[in-house]
Amino acid sequence: MFVDYSLYLVTDRAILKGEDIFSAVEKALKGGVTLVQLREKEVSSRDFYNIALKMKELVNSYNVPLIINDRLDIAFAVDADGLHIGQEDLPLTVARRLLGPSKILGYSVSNVDEAVFGEKNGADYLGAGPVYPTGSKSDAGEPIGIEGLIKIKERVSIPVVGIGGIGVDNISEVKRSGIDGVSLISAILGSGDIEGTSRILITKWRE
Amino acid sequence: MFVDYSLYLVTDRAILKGEDIFSAVEKALKGGVTLVQLREKEVSSRDFYNIALKMKELVNSYNVPLIINDRLDIAFAVDADGLHIGQEDLPLTVARRLLGPSKILGYSVSNVDEAVFGEKNGADYLGAGPVYPTGSKSDAGEPIGIEGLIKIKERVSIPVVGIGGIGVDNISEVKRSGIDGVSLISAILGSGDIEGTSRILITKWRE
Repeated sequence: MFVDYSLYLVTDRAILKGEDIFSAVEKALKGGVTLVQLREKEVSSRDFYNIALKMKELVNSYNVPLIINDRLDIAFAVDADGLHIGQEDLPLTVARRLLGPSKILGYSVSNVDEAVFGEKNGADYLGAGPVYPTGSKSDAGEPIGIEGLIKIKERVSIPVVGIGGIGVDNISEVKRSGIDGVSLISAILGSGDIEGTSRILITKWRE
Repeated sequence: MFVDYSLYLVTDRAILKGEDIFSAVEKALKGGVTLVQLREKEVSSRDFYNIALKMKELVNSYNVPLIINDRLDIAFAVDADGLHIGQEDLPLTVARRLLGPSKILGYSVSNVDEAVFGEKNGADYLGAGPVYPTGSKSDAGEPIGIEGLIKIKERVSIPVVGIGGIGVDNISEVKRSGIDGVSLISAILGSGDIEGTSRILITKWRE
């Protein structure tokens, strides 16, 4: 499957303040996001399954792949296009073995060592960050900056997606680092105009 | 694999008040528990994986199968002997399809309809309850009593294990209902003497 990492939306229902998640994601898809990751940390497996099943249908109807955060069982259950794991999730080698070779496997990294380990152990792409300070993920570490992105990109051949504090104001600066895409949560979902903001972001990315 | 459902321990680290979970489970194994379910609701996937990997080795060293609660991905990752799901977990049919035919699949039920559904849709055994009022699971419903157990047992041919409020004082009464085993959390883990209590319970069950 061809994957366009340019504008990668990660969901967070807390930021939506009650707005329906499917409606919010559809606005982002209309605005031009190229990849969607469903992230649910506070729900039962049954609810995660039901949300993922409906999200898969919605996202794929825009010819966009759906990636599931953390939960390999949910990814299997809804036949998602891939899985994204971090340092607190299943070990990368275990996830790759169970997932099989054909599904997309993403891996969160914050330095060159983790990035090299990720490429060597089966990741298809890396989520690198936090690039800037961010409020979306309370467990994010120190910002790695544009310099951190450049160092990681130089050492691996798989796609690198920057994450953390990226928005309309700094997306062009991030693009100049040479990475393959940007991953956003609050800059899209927390904006008053999800579709319009997504359109501005993808336009700036493609400039 | 032959499964003896007689004395089925379900873990809950909150009840252990800081005692090491492996030490506690080993005492229960020495006392005679015949099946162990690892239940972790508040940890990261990485921690659940690490605990499950070590627990698998410990439990299997006593020739006892290890069942994982809720998380099919963890069950896969550590090659556990089975999975136990409830009404808030993955749908039973989905879990059975993904798990394959050879692993043990348990299903929590609280009435005859759920029990019949469970047997028809791939469960290998049923956890039926709560039999008595219980403090171990805050989301447990109304007690179904011995009468509830008997009604369920009459309608299915797969093993039925009673759960909820069962302990030394009432295990003999539960046994007379004709079910195949009892599942316990606090009666074992919350007792001052895990090994001794397990031994009393299995002795009473086998009388």
